[in-house]
Amino acid sequence: MTPRKSFGSDNHAGAHPAVLRAIMDANSGDAVAYGADEWTERVTSALRETFRADDAFLVLNGSGANVLGLSVLLRRHEAVICAESAHINTDECGAPERLLGTKLLTVPAPDGKLTPELIAGRLAGRGDDHLAQPGVVAVTQSTEVGTCYSLAELRKIADFCHDSDLRVYLDGARLANAAAYLDCALAELAECADVLSFGGTKNGAVGAEALIVMHSDLAADVPYLRKQQTQLTSKMRFVAAQFGALLHDDLWRAGAAHANAMARRLAAGAATVPGVEIVHPVQANAVFARLDPRHIAALQHDWFFHLWDEAESVVRWMAAFDTSEADVDAFLTDIRAGA
Amino acid sequence: MTPRKSFGSDNHAGAHPAVLRAIMDANSGDAVAYGADEWTERVTSALRETFRADDAFLVLNGSGANVLGLSVLLRRHEAVICAESAHINTDECGAPERLLGTKLLTVPAPDGKLTPELIAGRLAGRGDDHLAQPGVVAVTQSTEVGTCYSLAELRKIADFCHDSDLRVYLDGARLANAAAYLDCALAELAECADVLSFGGTKNGAVGAEALIVMHSDLAADVPYLRKQQTQLTSKMRFVAAQFGALLHDDLWRAGAAHANAMARRLAAGAATVPGVEIVHPVQANAVFARLDPRHIAALQHDWFFHLWDEAESVVRWMAAFDTSEADVDAFLTDIRAGA
Amino acid sequence: MTPRKSFGSDNHAGAHPAVLRAIMDANSGDAVAYGADEWTERVTSALRETFRADDAFLVLNGSGANVLGLSVLLRRHEAVICAESAHINTDECGAPERLLGTKLLTVPAPDGKLTPELIAGRLAGRGDDHLAQPGVVAVTQSTEVGTCYSLAELRKIADFCHDSDLRVYLDGARLANAAAYLDCALAELAECADVLSFGGTKNGAVGAEALIVMHSDLAADVPYLRKQQTQLTSKMRFVAAQFGALLHDDLWRAGAAHANAMARRLAAGAATVPGVEIVHPVQANAVFARLDPRHIAALQHDWFFHLWDEAESVVRWMAAFDTSEADVDAFLTDIRAGA
Amino acid sequence: MTPRKSFGSDNHAGAHPAVLRAIMDANSGDAVAYGADEWTERVTSALRETFRADDAFLVLNGSGANVLGLSVLLRRHEAVICAESAHINTDECGAPERLLGTKLLTVPAPDGKLTPELIAGRLAGRGDDHLAQPGVVAVTQSTEVGTCYSLAELRKIADFCHDSDLRVYLDGARLANAAAYLDCALAELAECADVLSFGGTKNGAVGAEALIVMHSDLAADVPYLRKQQTQLTSKMRFVAAQFGALLHDDLWRAGAAHANAMARRLAAGAATVPGVEIVHPVQANAVFARLDPRHIAALQHDWFFHLWDEAESVVRWMAAFDTSEADVDAFLTDIRAGA
Repeated sequence: MTPRKSFGSDNHAGAHPAVLRAIMDANSGDAVAYGADEWTERVTSALRETFRADDAFLVLNGSGANVLGLSVLLRRHEAVICAESAHINTDECGAPERLLGTKLLTVPAPDGKLTPELIAGRLAGRGDDHLAQPGVVAVTQSTEVGTCYSLAELRKIADFCHDSDLRVYLDGARLANAAAYLDCALAELAECADVLSFGGTKNGAVGAEALIVMHSDLAADVPYLRKQQTQLTSKMRFVAAQFGALLHDDLWRAGAAHANAMARRLAAGAATVPGVEIVHPVQANAVFARLDPRHIAALQHDWFFHLWDEAESVVRWMAAFDTSEADVDAFLTDIRAGA
Repeated sequence: MTPRKSFGSDNHAGAHPAVLRAIMDANSGDAVAYGADEWTERVTSALRETFRADDAFLVLNGSGANVLGLSVLLRRHEAVICAESAHINTDECGAPERLLGTKLLTVPAPDGKLTPELIAGRLAGRGDDHLAQPGVVAVTQSTEVGTCYSLAELRKIADFCHDSDLRVYLDGARLANAAAYLDCALAELAECADVLSFGGTKNGAVGAEALIVMHSDLAADVPYLRKQQTQLTSKMRFVAAQFGALLHDDLWRAGAAHANAMARRLAAGAATVPGVEIVHPVQANAVFARLDPRHIAALQHDWFFHLWDEAESVVRWMAAFDTSEADVDAFLTDIRAGA
Repeated sequence: MTPRKSFGSDNHAGAHPAVLRAIMDANSGDAVAYGADEWTERVTSALRETFRADDAFLVLNGSGANVLGLSVLLRRHEAVICAESAHINTDECGAPERLLGTKLLTVPAPDGKLTPELIAGRLAGRGDDHLAQPGVVAVTQSTEVGTCYSLAELRKIADFCHDSDLRVYLDGARLANAAAYLDCALAELAECADVLSFGGTKNGAVGAEALIVMHSDLAADVPYLRKQQTQLTSKMRFVAAQFGALLHDDLWRAGAAHANAMARRLAAGAATVPGVEIVHPVQANAVFARLDPRHIAALQHDWFFHLWDEAESVVRWMAAFDTSEADVDAFLTDIRAGA
Repeated sequence: MTPRKSFGSDNHAGAHPAVLRAIMDANSGDAVAYGADEWTERVTSALRETFRADDAFLVLNGSGANVLGLSVLLRRHEAVICAESAHINTDECGAPERLLGTKLLTVPAPDGKLTPELIAGRLAGRGDDHLAQPGVVAVTQSTEVGTCYSLAELRKIADFCHDSDLRVYLDGARLANAAAYLDCALAELAECADVLSFGGTKNGAVGAEALIVMHSDLAADVPYLRKQQTQLTSKMRFVAAQFGALLHDDLWRAGAAHANAMARRLAAGAATVPGVEIVHPVQANAVFARLDPRHIAALQHDWFFHLWDEAESVVRWMAAFDTSEADVDAFLTDIRAGA
């Protein structure tokens, strides 16, 4: 079998050549470790400007960013409100509970999106010391089902939360895809959060995520929390260099916009195939489709992708920055053939 | 000022060119994420063989390896015996306590080395439920002061620990330097531990550490513990590739042996300078020297290194895989000039 | 208003006179602290015999017993399967997550009871290191909605769990009420669990709970875990004395059987009142009833009880060991009057 | 052997009759659980007044009070400075590390007392994210070796800490003994701390400790932290009643003053015995004495007390509220006889 493009995850893609070049270029002699280097200074400065944020910190992966971000915002006894489908709830092996001791108060959200109403439904027990007390609302943008909050939706959540003494954490592992879809600035998304992550890994980095802290009073403890949570790397310049490449000429946006376009192309093609149903709006770089189980099995013989919901016979197809039109079309040919 | 070689840390060095080439080579199309790729399979297989270990796991940094390794060995209520100077005690911002809830029972060990006698001194309260119960002994090889346990010393500790219902964790962030100094196989060092780390980062990697698990019954929980502790990276092949380069033709040993030799050259030269006293045997790649405070200040004007103990006027000079004889000699010239 | 019997909770009752007498009697001179006293020895021995268990430990309250019991059974990375309505999930302010770092994998269970099928539905992701790994199933007997598992139901759960590499924790804050309802021995209930709690507080104690450990290999760490979790009290004889009183002539069973009878009497009476619907089988000492909201409000003017589910207009009425027939009848008179 | 008074611990004493009477008196009908009862209201109000504090919370034991108190004061990443001999370091099985994830930065303090100079020695690494960051200083009054800080000493510590962005926790398990020794008000001691505990158990209670919170902004989270840490009891009135008895007519002071006097009587008598050396000033209710090991062994045949430091051949003798002059004199007779 000729190796084919994976539609399993944007994590299956390699690194963007510009990212690798930046790593090579950063390998120029000695540099002080743990982030006191010029690459880190330049990149965190650029991130602060891009997000109009008070501070930015580099970390190693998405779970690391999420746990660190929540730890900045949570008082010691507090719980987190999130969608049932949130990555922190379903895909991190219980890391937030384990490392922070926090409880996740989950809300069913079929399209992956919280609303003020859904959040309000989790506030009933405030002030009762028997009940876990929510302190942070965690939203994901773009969501785990490939949808994007509009800026208006995010602002409504932020306003509601701040009026309700709740802080907002935004899991932005795929924030680039949302910004590309919404055609907005990263800063417009960031102003709806108190702390957010900005993912590089799923968008062409080798392994690089940033934690964006909007208000300086939240930033003071981050260095210690990051170190304790083992997310401080010694040769930080190599993480910084990756973001340097992604930020240069908005490479992050080009890659994300391309991935989104490939997802749309795939969805548009698949939607015309009898027996294939697209089950969520395709806004970012994921396509969720319902197929006959035998059709799924046949496709998985040649193509790699995940069965998302076995009971519902729904699969997830993801496009990446390096998915080509030819990849999509070859996949569509097989989808059509198997229908 | 012309940039000079840093003697501040082996973390200040960049990456070995072979490591970067391996990263480039790994960027060949898609690969399944989170370690289910061929690079990871090859490298963990090679690590198992090299260490004659039952399993090996890749992680992102030294603190991550240490916390993960301890978590594998500690029962829920247990404490860790370690030297006061241990990295887990002095340099990880309290990460083991924070992430594992464990207490460190520290032992003064002027040369950085534990002994059965020092460990025994911490066992008095066993069975008393008011007192923290030691379950693991953590040793560092090479130690934080640049000394190396002999194989005989390590075996005595291991025997004592296993006879005393204690497990042994070995922090091997600089294990390569110890193996080079002792001219022994990594497997000979490993057989004195139950779980150990093998550092790549300080020896030419961009950022790559391995956790070596000697007995298969200890390995079952590691994948979940690693994920919860945010040390699982998605594009794992790029971490594996780094170790691939280091293991190829024992590049790790060449780099470490060279760093050790440069430290010895520096120590030998400095020892002849009036007013400079070498305070620990120079076995791995670190030199600890006592100098007049004004001498230190003058040298720090042009060279980067750490004041290790201000009260004792002791500095630490570290050599790396890429420290050249010319670097050492230039530094020695200034050391002599300032004396 | 004349003070009336509370139907709010069995925690609103005072202590049984025999319990207080036992406390007085235990105040006879000095005794070694922290459980090395004769009262503790006698009572833990009696508990071991009563439950046919390998060990028993006294603790201070129900949350303490639950967290301690789970900590004995959980491997470091594991999660707990429990009913959504479980006390550990809804009423302990997130204590298990906070103190143990564990995730609760909840299952909707309208009658408060888990089944093998419900448990099986939470096992899909075993072996996937992104997903929280269940290690313990927590059941409550009697349940939070006043129902009781039959012995057959419990045995099926235990068999399923043990066949599935899951351990069973039984929250027995109201185990006495279940044993009274089922007319079975405590040991018959205990043999379905690996570790269980046995509540004294809700059944006439001042504050005393026991953790029953069925297998000796699970007991070794309990003293240290109990101390770390701040559930070891110094003047333990006064906790032991309370259980001494409850175990004497099966006072625990008499009190629980009486409370159950009073709940049945209340339910039987209320069921005849138009507009009052009993919504769960009344097996232990709780009655859940649906009433018109105005009826609820009127009753709460004179009587203390909790609104259980505002949306469903369901209230909880609890009987205690000292609830009298006259109390129930007076309450029923007002229930009828307000209908 | 006739049972003799224990000199092992003030925890070996039973309860004061007035405390037991108060428990009996509180058993009058129903009361709302978890502290919403009139006994708790009265007693916490009295505690607030006595300590001139903004709030007071009842808990179940000393370790519970200490962990809760530290949790109120510590930021998530912070460490605690304390004396090496502090109860939280030596006698709680690692509870602060386990439950709070905090590191204890210990300071040798031969007389059990911290000073600004000793604290300052632990502040060197502030701002360095590799090093644990102290946030709280924990002092014990009276200390673990029976000494008492003077009010001036405490104030100097408090001033230094507050000038250094450190909060002060005072472990007052034996605060009564210190107040009796210093002949000062509890409020004078409290004003040197941000949060403190006030022990009842070692001074005649069955099991009752209070957490005193000096500033209202620190009090908001305490109810949730207490519940999560399993220190909230349901039938709280019985804990409150104990403090009610101790506060009534300053019974706490009478008991503590008596215990102190008995310790002084014992020390004065023992000091005249050849071969017996009193090794710490006897200020509270403990006597630390150095004796010949054979003398110790002979005495332990008939009397219960702890060998404090085997290497130094030092024992601890503790007096309690109910130690009589006859007890002391009988013990002295045997001490003299064995010399």
